[in-house]
Amino acid sequence: MNLSISKYSLIILLTLSPLFGQKIRPRNMGLEIGLFKTGKWNAITDVKGVLVGHETLILGDSVRTGVTIIKPHGGNLFEEKVMGAVYVTNGFGKALGFTQVEELGTIETPIGLTNTLNIFLVANAIVDYMILGNPNIRSVNPVVGETNDGGLNDIRGRHIKKEHVFTAINNAMSGPVMEGAVGAGTGTRALGFKGGIGTSSRILPPEAGGYTVGVIVQTNFGGSLMINGAPIGRELKKSPFSSSIPYDEDEGSCMIVIATDAPLSNRNLKRIAKRVNHAFGRVGAYSSNGSGDYAIIFSTFKSTESDELTVDRTELKNRAMNGLFMATVEATEEAIINSLFMAETVSSKYGTSEALPVEETMKILKKYKALNWNKKLYPWKR
Amino acid sequence: MNLSISKYSLIILLTLSPLFGQKIRPRNMGLEIGLFKTGKWNAITDVKGVLVGHETLILGDSVRTGVTIIKPHGGNLFEEKVMGAVYVTNGFGKALGFTQVEELGTIETPIGLTNTLNIFLVANAIVDYMILGNPNIRSVNPVVGETNDGGLNDIRGRHIKKEHVFTAINNAMSGPVMEGAVGAGTGTRALGFKGGIGTSSRILPPEAGGYTVGVIVQTNFGGSLMINGAPIGRELKKSPFSSSIPYDEDEGSCMIVIATDAPLSNRNLKRIAKRVNHAFGRVGAYSSNGSGDYAIIFSTFKSTESDELTVDRTELKNRAMNGLFMATVEATEEAIINSLFMAETVSSKYGTSEALPVEETMKILKKYKALNWNKKLYPWKR
Amino acid sequence: MNLSISKYSLIILLTLSPLFGQKIRPRNMGLEIGLFKTGKWNAITDVKGVLVGHETLILGDSVRTGVTIIKPHGGNLFEEKVMGAVYVTNGFGKALGFTQVEELGTIETPIGLTNTLNIFLVANAIVDYMILGNPNIRSVNPVVGETNDGGLNDIRGRHIKKEHVFTAINNAMSGPVMEGAVGAGTGTRALGFKGGIGTSSRILPPEAGGYTVGVIVQTNFGGSLMINGAPIGRELKKSPFSSSIPYDEDEGSCMIVIATDAPLSNRNLKRIAKRVNHAFGRVGAYSSNGSGDYAIIFSTFKSTESDELTVDRTELKNRAMNGLFMATVEATEEAIINSLFMAETVSSKYGTSEALPVEETMKILKKYKALNWNKKLYPWKR
Amino acid sequence: MNLSISKYSLIILLTLSPLFGQKIRPRNMGLEIGLFKTGKWNAITDVKGVLVGHETLILGDSVRTGVTIIKPHGGNLFEEKVMGAVYVTNGFGKALGFTQVEELGTIETPIGLTNTLNIFLVANAIVDYMILGNPNIRSVNPVVGETNDGGLNDIRGRHIKKEHVFTAINNAMSGPVMEGAVGAGTGTRALGFKGGIGTSSRILPPEAGGYTVGVIVQTNFGGSLMINGAPIGRELKKSPFSSSIPYDEDEGSCMIVIATDAPLSNRNLKRIAKRVNHAFGRVGAYSSNGSGDYAIIFSTFKSTESDELTVDRTELKNRAMNGLFMATVEATEEAIINSLFMAETVSSKYGTSEALPVEETMKILKKYKALNWNKKLYPWKR
Repeated sequence: MNLSISKYSLIILLTLSPLFGQKIRPRNMGLEIGLFKTGKWNAITDVKGVLVGHETLILGDSVRTGVTIIKPHGGNLFEEKVMGAVYVTNGFGKALGFTQVEELGTIETPIGLTNTLNIFLVANAIVDYMILGNPNIRSVNPVVGETNDGGLNDIRGRHIKKEHVFTAINNAMSGPVMEGAVGAGTGTRALGFKGGIGTSSRILPPEAGGYTVGVIVQTNFGGSLMINGAPIGRELKKSPFSSSIPYDEDEGSCMIVIATDAPLSNRNLKRIAKRVNHAFGRVGAYSSNGSGDYAIIFSTFKSTESDELTVDRTELKNRAMNGLFMATVEATEEAIINSLFMAETVSSKYGTSEALPVEETMKILKKYKALNWNKKLYPWKR
Repeated sequence: MNLSISKYSLIILLTLSPLFGQKIRPRNMGLEIGLFKTGKWNAITDVKGVLVGHETLILGDSVRTGVTIIKPHGGNLFEEKVMGAVYVTNGFGKALGFTQVEELGTIETPIGLTNTLNIFLVANAIVDYMILGNPNIRSVNPVVGETNDGGLNDIRGRHIKKEHVFTAINNAMSGPVMEGAVGAGTGTRALGFKGGIGTSSRILPPEAGGYTVGVIVQTNFGGSLMINGAPIGRELKKSPFSSSIPYDEDEGSCMIVIATDAPLSNRNLKRIAKRVNHAFGRVGAYSSNGSGDYAIIFSTFKSTESDELTVDRTELKNRAMNGLFMATVEATEEAIINSLFMAETVSSKYGTSEALPVEETMKILKKYKALNWNKKLYPWKR
Repeated sequence: MNLSISKYSLIILLTLSPLFGQKIRPRNMGLEIGLFKTGKWNAITDVKGVLVGHETLILGDSVRTGVTIIKPHGGNLFEEKVMGAVYVTNGFGKALGFTQVEELGTIETPIGLTNTLNIFLVANAIVDYMILGNPNIRSVNPVVGETNDGGLNDIRGRHIKKEHVFTAINNAMSGPVMEGAVGAGTGTRALGFKGGIGTSSRILPPEAGGYTVGVIVQTNFGGSLMINGAPIGRELKKSPFSSSIPYDEDEGSCMIVIATDAPLSNRNLKRIAKRVNHAFGRVGAYSSNGSGDYAIIFSTFKSTESDELTVDRTELKNRAMNGLFMATVEATEEAIINSLFMAETVSSKYGTSEALPVEETMKILKKYKALNWNKKLYPWKR
Repeated sequence: MNLSISKYSLIILLTLSPLFGQKIRPRNMGLEIGLFKTGKWNAITDVKGVLVGHETLILGDSVRTGVTIIKPHGGNLFEEKVMGAVYVTNGFGKALGFTQVEELGTIETPIGLTNTLNIFLVANAIVDYMILGNPNIRSVNPVVGETNDGGLNDIRGRHIKKEHVFTAINNAMSGPVMEGAVGAGTGTRALGFKGGIGTSSRILPPEAGGYTVGVIVQTNFGGSLMINGAPIGRELKKSPFSSSIPYDEDEGSCMIVIATDAPLSNRNLKRIAKRVNHAFGRVGAYSSNGSGDYAIIFSTFKSTESDELTVDRTELKNRAMNGLFMATVEATEEAIINSLFMAETVSSKYGTSEALPVEETMKILKKYKALNWNKKLYPWKR
């Protein structure tokens, strides 16, 4: 039996979720991360045109996995490629499509996230999808990332199939994005707790261009959780390098997809992607040896073809980049925190990954004064 | 009907091949490339332990493709990883497994070569193979490259299946290596002619360490063929930028796998891999925009585990690298030339790719004095 | 008049400093950063053999600059090179010597830090120094970094001369390291306050190898200061993107030099260096467009020459790297914090950079419970 | 006595040079390299606006060195930066300014070439020059390369001073460029002969955009010289790995500066720069361990500022790059060959480096049919 969560209505789930698991987004409980205001949905979908779809696989006592799809826009991506870039923090992972993005500077397919051993099947399904929609394609470069959900999932069984990928692609929509143990985050673990999918966005003030940055993450990595400076991991005794976590077992990965509508060169797109490192530092990660930490970034800004040989681009100047750098750090940090708050405890025959204990966490946040900081000092905040 | 050439005896083929297509390796006709002597087979398999297997798919009038497997050694590669590195000349390609090799410095699976749209199926088949042989694997990093054989092959049909990959893996053997329109080279084209698989090797003199370098290539790229300095492409009117080859259509790719038994750091392995560029220059390539030119290198030299935390490595000094650099340029150059000499004309409903006209080429080589240069000047040559 | 602080006795300064400026290292006031214990001096000099020398230039009302030298060991570095690597977070800087370290994997001179427009003079002085000590040198690769102290210093005057570099080299010693507005940190500013030189170290537990990691920084960068999670910058109203700090003026740089005695490949040295990013995130930096953020790392571990062509190396395994990653994040974070706590207010005709208000900062740290966390949970801490 | 050649009239020298040393550019003797036609001067100065200046130092029996300056345009480069990129083939060199070009994508000073141990003095002199012309500069990024002329020059004496750099900058002019043992090429050696400065250019056909590519090189590297396919090095017994050239002594470097007027992104500029490798292969180089082989590229195409935050750029499409790739390979190849043909024998107390024996070389070129190939086949050639 394939209990695909994606078949439930998103709206109902979001409305009722507190009844099931007290899953309220942390910002709604007073946790404000960073200086900039968020977009309407506080999600990658705040970047106009970006669509996200999940397909979740929960099957018996062994399958806890899924696939998540991010579409830079709803059109034919092969015909209307978007400018993109990639960045690798720690490359113990199988993320694919990277060398072509690096060389040509474009992304031409929906971006996929899944589990480690399913990545090639997912890439192949995306090829299927692209071939169907493009009768002349003989070469196409899917961009797919993965993290390892083998602690909760029968990863060797590789249960994601082509139809799940197609469902996620077809499910992709704008608006609010499901977070937590869903899609590619169904079986992941992070910072000692159940991880999963998280998303967030930031909008720059008009004088900095008013651009939007949106981030979606698949969290599965180690470290000692910090939230807005509060040492949650330490307080909850979930830190690496303690007796219970040996030196070589604090493994895991984090996939990050960043979208923006700012007009950017590939060079500056990559510079932005590099700032995920700063967000890792803020949440208590150190990118362990076993981590596959990859950032994929694209801009939805369209260039105009000027003639046969050239295009006309608008590009942000180097010295106008600071707002985007900071916005990316903030949105990545919040997306990671969201993934933890929104994930419910998941069990399988391989073990149990406990959800972040929200009530306790909120207490610690209060103790460390990490909530509701004085907005009056920063009038440009929402 | 799947007419798999790999089922024919290799020995018989090699013996009889002149009867079919006059396919004699160019070195046997007096073409000597470079200063160093070759190994016994003038093949990547001259590096002790390295195995190569092909599976060729020729099916009706549309399927002209295949898969080629290079095994760094015959043991369990996941348990006994080899030191490796990768280098990208021009990244318009889908080669996968690269970021992990870059990060961790090891290769842990057989290396695969295939066509562009089959690469994910081949990678997934290698995962299958590794899972079968390693009951505890939950993460494994296949390294696979591809070039686009869509000019001769029904590439959108993605005809390579898991069983073909397994056959190629199981076929992998030491000794002479089949070249030309075989395995992953079945449908490729290069420099205006039928390309394919080629291989070559070099052995350093004892005073330079006596190490072996072996190279295998899958040729599918553009340019104006030069052989040992003779302008074959120009003479045979197969040059880009002429009226028949528009500026944006001299596309293609070249995959290169390099093996050595020299004890090398990842840093120096990568430095060697970078020298494929010099070989590209020598054969008349310029790595066009559409080219996916990737080098994968590994060393079969074994380190010894010294304790729980460390290994003891022997490593070549920087200043001892020159011989390996030059040997790699030479072996890559000769492997590319071999791929052209050994490939027969291939036709399909998509078109015909003519083999290099060997007789005419030999005449041009003679005209330009590119054959049988005076070995007495270089007594260290064989 | 050249008032060189380096002529004062270090011991006296450290003893008396509280009388002058209340400059006590934050760890001595209860601020503990991270999980691992520090070395004896909590300085880069805890890595055995590493020496640090400063030369400070304070001249009239306009010169506020200097040079800092880090010697990987006290011997002839050209004859006994150390393994090294480099990493660039944001390359708006003039740091030099990087491509050769990247290619050859070694550092062969003392490492210098200075101001932006003096970097070439300092590099040239290091060449002078190397030539003097090595009669046969015809090529040598100084490694020098810089940050821009033009906010307090007559940077266009380029007041650092060869003799200052030689003094710093000759001053280099083991033991405690002067921090704050000294040497290359004399005129730098960071995170809204006076920056400067800071240093820290960590020692891994025996089961992780017992290695030492030492870090020294020259801080001159922007962001909103966080210390152990407490939002100092926000509380003290020193955050970028507020009305007083326009979007394109939160500039600056951070140079980081990392030393370790762990036996490491160049690949793993570079992986460690990359972890400075996580420390940047923890202190509230986001590496603005104008930042030249560079890490230089070396290992003092000696390999043995095995024969003419090869060396024998001991190397840490990939999976033993986690402790070093975390230790580097922690030591970098603490070195940055130290640079702020130890720097006194500096004025010149160009302006004044106020020191971090220590008393106020300590109050904020207490408010946010960032001091004296419960060590009993982590018995491996000192 | 400082016998500075730059004080002689360029025109007179070029006119009279055959009377002194039979130094005729090889193209004028029938050596045609590649498919595309050259610009008017067959020099980097064919890219409109680009200026080149030399200052040559020949002093007594020991000083044989100099400096060469390339100015992307004659205006204030700091105010009107050009788009640029860098690429490192083999980084055993001290070339500086690279990380900032990589990060920000611009070149903001004249580009310098000189000898290894003088590079920091030259960089500092360029800082002097920039400060003089820009009253507000507090940070500037000189881009300077070097090769080692220590085989002919008293390199440890570091005889290049600020005034020589200023002279070269002020000498910089358009039109024909002096080649051979001049400027930074005064004391260099390449491929067994006297090397030096060489330059060449290519113009794309109108249908490929009609762009110009110009290259200037400072040759000082090893290998076995090939010219248009003819094995000159082998015939003249100047090959590495022979008894007279031990394995670890085929050292040297090549600096390459590329100019174009094509509108290009930093990404595509770097892709072009990478093609110098193919030219290295064509001339018989293999980039030995000791080689510092660096390419610096810039475009003179001007973008227009659209508003405070953005610029409007025209950029060549990826698929329009092929002509520029090939043109760069050809111009680099010819520039290297020119440097050899135009260099006279240079002697000093350190030794003698013999010029390429032109007459003998021409005979070999004829023997190998490397001259005057049939242009009728390629009607687009000049």
